[in-house]
Amino acid sequence: MKTIDFYLDFISPFAYLASFRLPELARKYGASIAYHAIDLTAAKRAAGNTGPANREIPPKIKYLMADLRRWAKRYGVPLAPPSGFDSNLANRGLLWAREKGREEAYVRAVYDAIWGRGGDPADLRVLRSAVEAAGLPGDEFEKAVNSGELKASYEEVNRQAQARGVFGVPIYIVDDEMFWGNDRLDFLEEYVRERSR
Amino acid sequence: MKTIDFYLDFISPFAYLASFRLPELARKYGASIAYHAIDLTAAKRAAGNTGPANREIPPKIKYLMADLRRWAKRYGVPLAPPSGFDSNLANRGLLWAREKGREEAYVRAVYDAIWGRGGDPADLRVLRSAVEAAGLPGDEFEKAVNSGELKASYEEVNRQAQARGVFGVPIYIVDDEMFWGNDRLDFLEEYVRERSR
Repeated sequence: MKTIDFYLDFISPFAYLASFRLPELARKYGASIAYHAIDLTAAKRAAGNTGPANREIPPKIKYLMADLRRWAKRYGVPLAPPSGFDSNLANRGLLWAREKGREEAYVRAVYDAIWGRGGDPADLRVLRSAVEAAGLPGDEFEKAVNSGELKASYEEVNRQAQARGVFGVPIYIVDDEMFWGNDRLDFLEEYVRERSR
Repeated sequence: MKTIDFYLDFISPFAYLASFRLPELARKYGASIAYHAIDLTAAKRAAGNTGPANREIPPKIKYLMADLRRWAKRYGVPLAPPSGFDSNLANRGLLWAREKGREEAYVRAVYDAIWGRGGDPADLRVLRSAVEAAGLPGDEFEKAVNSGELKASYEEVNRQAQARGVFGVPIYIVDDEMFWGNDRLDFLEEYVRERSR
């Protein structure tokens, strides 16, 4: 059985879009998904991409918002830009959900809260309510998410991703093949399909 | 009849890829193409994108080359990275081809020489031979391409593109709708199709 490493950052709307299609794609070909939430800004810097963020490039961000609306329409999913840009808390939370074997539910619930309803990913109340909506224990989540242990694990996840050349999100790696972007799920699917026959 | 403004830079492999599919797409829906070759680096800077070029971001350029090979395979076209990065001469030449009403032939021939066969876009011999292969007069091309008149027109093309928010290539604009990337030809086609019924 193939494993698809899925690198995301909860601040990324393109990873949000990919999060709808990827689980279905994986199930279709009997593949599993290993979720990795990383700090996109740190990954870009580590790769040598020291330029401004897209939101600091006015004509580009205007276009990207139009592009996102087109994708959201095509997928039939809601799209509401979040009210904050610091996603490290939401990203760390995924490590807690992994321990519980509930990563897919966590990704869905947290992405829906952030990009589906415009919640601030740095707001613990937003995350707690998403976690509870996914049937996970909010008290335990609150305690775990700011623990030193989770912070250390998160740093390790970032280090490993950077060492592997993960320069953006969403990135999917199967075997040693890398695919970048919601718009490369087709190439990923082609790759997985040809090898699952 | 709709006009599709097609912004390209001969240094861009993604515009090279798009140049195969766009003419066919336009003919299918009775649209015309207005070709604009621009200085991509200047367009990025004008938009506020002051970061390093992709070729200066090692893991990203490695990935992008793999991505380009996937697209070239899908389109069934050759792909050979050019031996130089200054495309302003090749870009200016398009203005000369426009005066002759032979833009499409020029784009095809010059792109084939640069990204199809790895020619240096700053090498006048490479361009002259491409121009002649397209049935255009090489002597006249050589004289025109370094004229002050063409240089001034090229600056004006760049100014207009930047004023319009063209922050990258390939970009297609129809009406006031912008589409960016070889991988957005599907969205462009959807837009044109819905309005050509």
